[in-house]
Amino acid sequence: MDYQRIFAEAIERLHAEGRYRVFIDILRNKGAFPNARCFAGHNGPKPITVWCSNDYLAMGQHPKVIAAMEEALHDVGAGSGGTRNISGNSHYHIELENELADLHGKEGALLFTSGYISNEATLSTLGKILPGCIIFSDALNHASMIAGIRNSGCEKQVFRHNDLAHLEELLAAAPAEAPKLIAFESVYSMDGDVAPIAAICDLADKYQAITYLDEVHAVGMYGPRGGGISDRDAVASRVTIIEGTLAKAIGVMGGYIAADRNIIDVIRSYAPGFIFTTSLSPVLVAGALASVRHLKASSAERDAQQKHAALLKQIFTEAKLPVMPSTTHIVPLLVGDPVKAKRISDILLAEYGIYVQPINYPTVPRGTERLRFTPGPAHDEKMMRELAQALVEIWDRLEMRWAA
Amino acid sequence: MDYQRIFAEAIERLHAEGRYRVFIDILRNKGAFPNARCFAGHNGPKPITVWCSNDYLAMGQHPKVIAAMEEALHDVGAGSGGTRNISGNSHYHIELENELADLHGKEGALLFTSGYISNEATLSTLGKILPGCIIFSDALNHASMIAGIRNSGCEKQVFRHNDLAHLEELLAAAPAEAPKLIAFESVYSMDGDVAPIAAICDLADKYQAITYLDEVHAVGMYGPRGGGISDRDAVASRVTIIEGTLAKAIGVMGGYIAADRNIIDVIRSYAPGFIFTTSLSPVLVAGALASVRHLKASSAERDAQQKHAALLKQIFTEAKLPVMPSTTHIVPLLVGDPVKAKRISDILLAEYGIYVQPINYPTVPRGTERLRFTPGPAHDEKMMRELAQALVEIWDRLEMRWAA
Repeated sequence: MDYQRIFAEAIERLHAEGRYRVFIDILRNKGAFPNARCFAGHNGPKPITVWCSNDYLAMGQHPKVIAAMEEALHDVGAGSGGTRNISGNSHYHIELENELADLHGKEGALLFTSGYISNEATLSTLGKILPGCIIFSDALNHASMIAGIRNSGCEKQVFRHNDLAHLEELLAAAPAEAPKLIAFESVYSMDGDVAPIAAICDLADKYQAITYLDEVHAVGMYGPRGGGISDRDAVASRVTIIEGTLAKAIGVMGGYIAADRNIIDVIRSYAPGFIFTTSLSPVLVAGALASVRHLKASSAERDAQQKHAALLKQIFTEAKLPVMPSTTHIVPLLVGDPVKAKRISDILLAEYGIYVQPINYPTVPRGTERLRFTPGPAHDEKMMRELAQALVEIWDRLEMRWAA
Repeated sequence: MDYQRIFAEAIERLHAEGRYRVFIDILRNKGAFPNARCFAGHNGPKPITVWCSNDYLAMGQHPKVIAAMEEALHDVGAGSGGTRNISGNSHYHIELENELADLHGKEGALLFTSGYISNEATLSTLGKILPGCIIFSDALNHASMIAGIRNSGCEKQVFRHNDLAHLEELLAAAPAEAPKLIAFESVYSMDGDVAPIAAICDLADKYQAITYLDEVHAVGMYGPRGGGISDRDAVASRVTIIEGTLAKAIGVMGGYIAADRNIIDVIRSYAPGFIFTTSLSPVLVAGALASVRHLKASSAERDAQQKHAALLKQIFTEAKLPVMPSTTHIVPLLVGDPVKAKRISDILLAEYGIYVQPINYPTVPRGTERLRFTPGPAHDEKMMRELAQALVEIWDRLEMRWAA
């Protein structure tokens, strides 16, 4: 059995398709984000501007977050030392769960080590607790939801992205007595469009389904308190389970769900991905707690992000760059080819000190490869104009397609 | 569809079996571990001694670890801001992966957000890359390995715990041309026994299998450099993939694998649980790096842990407490009933300020419920004698079974 050959061939396929991934080696500069240092392909660190971070509001460098983490580090140490059940349940965890439950107007919340595992563990466990459950899943749901649904062992029905008529067709065709779960996202992170949450909840009511809403690209950024699109649209109380992350706009690391007390208790008690893992470091939990509390009270970061995203879309549009439609803070630029997407990204980094990662399959469908920009409160107009100028030069040089 | 009733009944089953879990709300005291503060069931925090932490060597409070985390926090901020591929690959990650590869004598290493996800992602992806693979799994492998094997979609053959004859029987019965993977642990954490790694590698060679060894309860604690049992037994080079954690003896959080370059590249490129998740916070990575480096050079912590574990076993044995056989640092005491295990734990906490969590199903098989003590370098003889005295009083009071 030639294992080496099988592994080598798996890697070769990626090279052949032009989607072998090279991780860019960087260090961010705390207090000066989006500035960072890059270690790749030259001697010593070189200054760059980061345009593709999911630390959307730069909370990862907020003084309150840093201070809270430093305090926890000196009070209780580096790690939690155990699972939530075996000595790893700190007072910080309980405080943050209470804060997140309040953020989403739910009875309870539950922390996980990542957003990925919160989706995987919750969806797979729900499917096992609800015998015969059918899961209705938006076609663009991301990988961790797909993993959770697959691992639930439930029947899965995929509805066309944000297509209410198709969702209703599938719900109506399913047996009335079967438990039903509709799983979807609020902001779809690679296109920047938004789900019709209220209308989906209407269908859930009509067909007696429960709803699972992934708000990872919205928490902190939408709604008067940063509770996400369900907060902005005032429909959080209609959603059964809201899932979020502490690793994007909150600026730290970890994931969670918020729901009524019984559901939280079920997931807490039955999900292997929650039970059999060391809990989040109290240092991270303390930082996330400070960040969530700050964003509940302050809209300055949200407002600046929206203003900068609108400005970048306008600058790209005026430059005839093929910006894709997006109603949110996400600004995708269509390339449509994995090799070219990588090439543009390489030139931007090497010649302009601009870092934006190419987004290729399997993160997006083949043929829709893109560059995805995430302007935040700290990306100013000068940076945007430099970015657009660099892109225009490269678009010219590589004879790329312009917007109509 | 009465979803509430289904969820409520799932919780009711746990109460009925006496295995509903109550998380003890604590804060550890950095610099004074195993001392901690407990918030449960009384006014204000109360001092306790922790006997069930997996921060086995108290590295979570080591000054080098704290200093490294503080430095990273001030240098780069709270979180990584992205997946490894999209802006979340910091120089710290690369340094730690190099350090871990060196620790295990492998060409490469790969970080995950937890040991759970490193097992789940690696095993499920290997099974998909190797068509027709059969996975041979030790009967006592823990939950994350079982999840990974299930999610691989491969045929699974379970061999009796540490039973070489049974493993060989199954290997011999399998088709010679099928890819084969043997998945096992070095230290089994609930019993404290150790796998015959060299003999399993002999069988792997004979039947052309690759090997996957989980060293999460051994890394940092065994071998001249803390590389685990495979380091102690000088067989690391014979194991195909070694998996470890940064959350137990290393004292921080996160998981990893170490293997040859091609395998690392395959998992890095194909595993959804690695690709689609925000990378470990650089703060955690910096702490883990300092901890791994310290434990490579220092055996003082390992020696003290072994000495204290031997002493605690001796004290328990002399007191006729039913200590279970263990050849490692883990000291389990048999109770055999989930309600009594919880009761003893509650009395220890409420009356003696001693914290040890009951270990019930599904963490251990029903009927083998136990208390599991993890003495470390900081648990002194006085603490041990107080612990044994408390247990003897409770054993008397509850009319528990004594050792022969």
